[in-house]
Amino acid sequence: MKQYKKHDFPVHEVRRFLEPGPIVLISSAWQGKANIMAMGWYTVLEFSPSLIGCMITSANHSYEMIRKSKECVINIPTVDLMEQVIGIGNCSGEKTDKFAAFDLTARKATKVSAPIIKECYANFECRLADGHMLEKYNFFIFEVVKAHVAISPKYPQTMHYRGDGVFMLSGKNVSRRSKFTPEKL
Amino acid sequence: MKQYKKHDFPVHEVRRFLEPGPIVLISSAWQGKANIMAMGWYTVLEFSPSLIGCMITSANHSYEMIRKSKECVINIPTVDLMEQVIGIGNCSGEKTDKFAAFDLTARKATKVSAPIIKECYANFECRLADGHMLEKYNFFIFEVVKAHVAISPKYPQTMHYRGDGVFMLSGKNVSRRSKFTPEKL
Repeated sequence: MKQYKKHDFPVHEVRRFLEPGPIVLISSAWQGKANIMAMGWYTVLEFSPSLIGCMITSANHSYEMIRKSKECVINIPTVDLMEQVIGIGNCSGEKTDKFAAFDLTARKATKVSAPIIKECYANFECRLADGHMLEKYNFFIFEVVKAHVAISPKYPQTMHYRGDGVFMLSGKNVSRRSKFTPEKL
Repeated sequence: MKQYKKHDFPVHEVRRFLEPGPIVLISSAWQGKANIMAMGWYTVLEFSPSLIGCMITSANHSYEMIRKSKECVINIPTVDLMEQVIGIGNCSGEKTDKFAAFDLTARKATKVSAPIIKECYANFECRLADGHMLEKYNFFIFEVVKAHVAISPKYPQTMHYRGDGVFMLSGKNVSRRSKFTPEKL
């Protein structure tokens, strides 16, 4: 597994890593236990405050842990963690200590009690900002309160889930910056 | 521009094309005028009914057109449309007829009055399912009521926006189907 050296990153710019749509790992903690789930149903909602909306099925063991603790960390894994991502998505935290089972390191976060997954490219510490959509849609609105991002590479190679057990891996990056009006960048 | 031959596609499976996170084009119509916007802030919310949540800034000309008509089409462009996607994202429908300006073809949809963009890989006809989150978050919840998807290729090469004028192009596809439990596919 890769060892990323990370720096603090502006929370209002996390869209750079989330808008492309990678599978993320959500880590949470409640009553002394930590858990991890894999997730692809989320969206950026606002730059500042830095808001992210996530649909998490209540069937997930993580659902109540996040709802009760009102916190989580959104971690971005790169392709070297593919087998772990699949393993995490195919077992339940009710029966499995996923940090131990998948040989991942839980690091203390700075602003939330949920742990950071050290081996991931980026870690976004989140607090629940609005739970009004939980009852009807299982939709959490989080505010990113602290962001840690690897210093290099600039663009991580991420996994994007197509359903049916198929992942798309992120490909080449193309800049068209000169074609954009400044306020649209 | 590519000419895709399309077939009807099950609406509860549109996550296969949206969960990977491509930039999409939203087409809308109101009072005899049609418009297009580029968008990357959306998420799948439910398989059945097929619900998609989209954050659309009210500064967009499309915002009121969609809010008033309660309909839109989510179109998925492939890389051959990159210059059109950038052009569409960097001008306003208030001053520009984007179908004409970018040489795109508006086709009649089957269940909504918003037009389909013929040159896109897939077209998802949507009706507003819930507008309660509009006031606070500009967040539309749409139900996909009809889906049209290209017969080939199976996996489109899509654009994923990283901010700052940079696009990630979708890369290779990897199946790990045998590692999934059936209910997790």
